[in-house]
Amino acid sequence: MPHTWLGIADDDPFGPATLPYGVFSTGDGGRPRVGVAAGEWVLDLAAAAHAQDAPFAEIVDAPVLNPLMAAGPQTWRQVRESLTAWLTDPAYEDTLNRYLFERARVRMHLPFEVGDYVDFYSSEHHATNLGRILRPGQPPLSPNWKHLPLGYHGRSGTVVVSGTEIVRPMGQRKPPSAGEPEFGPSTRLDIEAEVGFVVGVPAPGGRVPVSDFTEHVFGAFLVNDWSARDLQAWENMPLGPFLGKSFATSVSPWVVPLEALQEARVDPPERDPEPLEYLRDAPGEPWGLDLRLEVRINGHLVARPPFSRMYWTPAQQLAHLTVNGASLRTGDIYASGTVSGSEKEERGSLIELSWNGEEPIELPDGSTRTFLEDGDTVTITATTSGPGAEVIGLGEVAGRVLPAQG
Amino acid sequence: MPHTWLGIADDDPFGPATLPYGVFSTGDGGRPRVGVAAGEWVLDLAAAAHAQDAPFAEIVDAPVLNPLMAAGPQTWRQVRESLTAWLTDPAYEDTLNRYLFERARVRMHLPFEVGDYVDFYSSEHHATNLGRILRPGQPPLSPNWKHLPLGYHGRSGTVVVSGTEIVRPMGQRKPPSAGEPEFGPSTRLDIEAEVGFVVGVPAPGGRVPVSDFTEHVFGAFLVNDWSARDLQAWENMPLGPFLGKSFATSVSPWVVPLEALQEARVDPPERDPEPLEYLRDAPGEPWGLDLRLEVRINGHLVARPPFSRMYWTPAQQLAHLTVNGASLRTGDIYASGTVSGSEKEERGSLIELSWNGEEPIELPDGSTRTFLEDGDTVTITATTSGPGAEVIGLGEVAGRVLPAQG
Repeated sequence: MPHTWLGIADDDPFGPATLPYGVFSTGDGGRPRVGVAAGEWVLDLAAAAHAQDAPFAEIVDAPVLNPLMAAGPQTWRQVRESLTAWLTDPAYEDTLNRYLFERARVRMHLPFEVGDYVDFYSSEHHATNLGRILRPGQPPLSPNWKHLPLGYHGRSGTVVVSGTEIVRPMGQRKPPSAGEPEFGPSTRLDIEAEVGFVVGVPAPGGRVPVSDFTEHVFGAFLVNDWSARDLQAWENMPLGPFLGKSFATSVSPWVVPLEALQEARVDPPERDPEPLEYLRDAPGEPWGLDLRLEVRINGHLVARPPFSRMYWTPAQQLAHLTVNGASLRTGDIYASGTVSGSEKEERGSLIELSWNGEEPIELPDGSTRTFLEDGDTVTITATTSGPGAEVIGLGEVAGRVLPAQG
Repeated sequence: MPHTWLGIADDDPFGPATLPYGVFSTGDGGRPRVGVAAGEWVLDLAAAAHAQDAPFAEIVDAPVLNPLMAAGPQTWRQVRESLTAWLTDPAYEDTLNRYLFERARVRMHLPFEVGDYVDFYSSEHHATNLGRILRPGQPPLSPNWKHLPLGYHGRSGTVVVSGTEIVRPMGQRKPPSAGEPEFGPSTRLDIEAEVGFVVGVPAPGGRVPVSDFTEHVFGAFLVNDWSARDLQAWENMPLGPFLGKSFATSVSPWVVPLEALQEARVDPPERDPEPLEYLRDAPGEPWGLDLRLEVRINGHLVARPPFSRMYWTPAQQLAHLTVNGASLRTGDIYASGTVSGSEKEERGSLIELSWNGEEPIELPDGSTRTFLEDGDTVTITATTSGPGAEVIGLGEVAGRVLPAQG
């Protein structure tokens, strides 16, 4: 990868091998518009494209990524090739300099208009931990778990961009010791560190085979699927998660195109039993991804969940999600489910890290946590390897917990 | 209610006491636009409003009801008062006649742009029947059922308007006798007769109390929540319904404003135990609704589910849905869950009517049904009482089953 005239270091997670897309605005009342991150800078993509008379100028001239995402893989490649040329050839420097903004000084917005939001449950380690915690004495995985990527629909209207403050939810819960349910602020507010994917090209009739993943999915981002474990435990049977999840789901502002993740592709874990045909990996086309997540509370590292160990890949999740004929729209998103590895320090949720509150974790400032306290800030980041020495970053998703509003 | 110059009979379900809103287009390439049903006619609302210089002309000049729904109760009343005046005062006949179309000759579209779709489970009889069928020997209702209106998020991108053909879904299922799951067309395709409600006025911070129901909800419509029982049974644990529901949900094209349902309001059943405070009925403001549903297969009446027997009202459902701070957007919809009464002929799903396929129902043409066959057309209608002798109709939601696409 050639150097940019911006002087970005090779190991900058937003170097020229990443080039993620987002939506930003400037402090001076500028409208939200599509940007591309390069090092510490954001390029105003529509302004640059218009200045260069790029054929894709119109579709990036929008307050969300949806038109670009809908345009499909050929356009995505064309935009990325142009961006690489613009940022590495010093001949463009004079023209493009005026469309660059300091990343630290812009405001980021939700990058896409969300259609439907599906949350999967595809880490075997996470599902096993939850089974052990919530259903002790029973087989930790439900009988269907290794036959299909379990999932459910979440609330798309409460998907918020990183930085949005999270008000502790109120709700019903019934501690095992209580005779009757009670109402109040959640006392077991948790996180789930996940990776999300966004659909670009619609599939009106559903049925997107595993091999067509890259024809439809535009890119990846980070997700914090905030979870009120006490609300969830009481409401969960028999219809699954609802108010324990629906108050907020945070996403990172920068969407990394799949093309930037080519070097991150790895074989997923062996699947046993072999899945039904519609769920088999496309031969030679694995979509395991070696994304290395890090979870921090108030800046202190508490977990390093490895996405490479996910049992079901995003290509399988999409094939499953659509196999019943469910259509896809531009802006549909889906998340992996909590990413957890086999080791304690690889667990992507507090219910696992503190083993349902029984083993508080210690932070370097001397405090302990079982679940989140008001004022806590949770930050999830992820990086992976790019071509050569380069690092590809997914940026971060962060959120601070505010007290419940009584 | 005065007579209209259209000569509509008092017992016409779309008489002047109903005046439902929908989106229609004409065969001559006309764009989808807002209409009001009156007897066998549809009034082009924007054209009429512009001709009358009505102050609301701009917000009804749209391809969906969303701008009108967002405008709030005062505007809703103003539009309805104008419509009543226009249709009952013969002085308007000459002007408005040119904006009337025969209902039988227009095409109906999805009336709203859907935000989130939540499906509840609020009939005690339905939940009890399902519990008996699916978990014999255990208490039929889960311990939480009488404490909160159970619900889950459905797929908003596959909400379709009445008349859309329903392709039998493919998917995984595992009959109890089989050792391994198999893949194929659903063999237990079912219906769920429900009533839906659509949010007009957003609630950015959630927390809509029971007493504010009419400040936010615009109107009611009919829902057929198609369900593949075999897919659902295999995937359901522990995350609830997913592909067994997400292939399609049909809605009726006409949205009946809440104001037309004032005479239908009845006390809901006694609740025992008394719900937590945020779920209590507003004093003197019951939102039980005496809607009398009818379910037909290929024209043959198979059930008469009584909405008046629903344990949780739409006002309680909305209060619960938002109590955790989940925001509401214009176009968010929620459905009641299958409407079933205490009697066999009042059951709103085939899994109940045929008791899980063990007791086939007989149709007058001599055929029997346990679940749906390819080519079957299911039609759900509902009516209730208006002021005086008038009948208020919710119209119908219909769909025909097409064979699976292999």
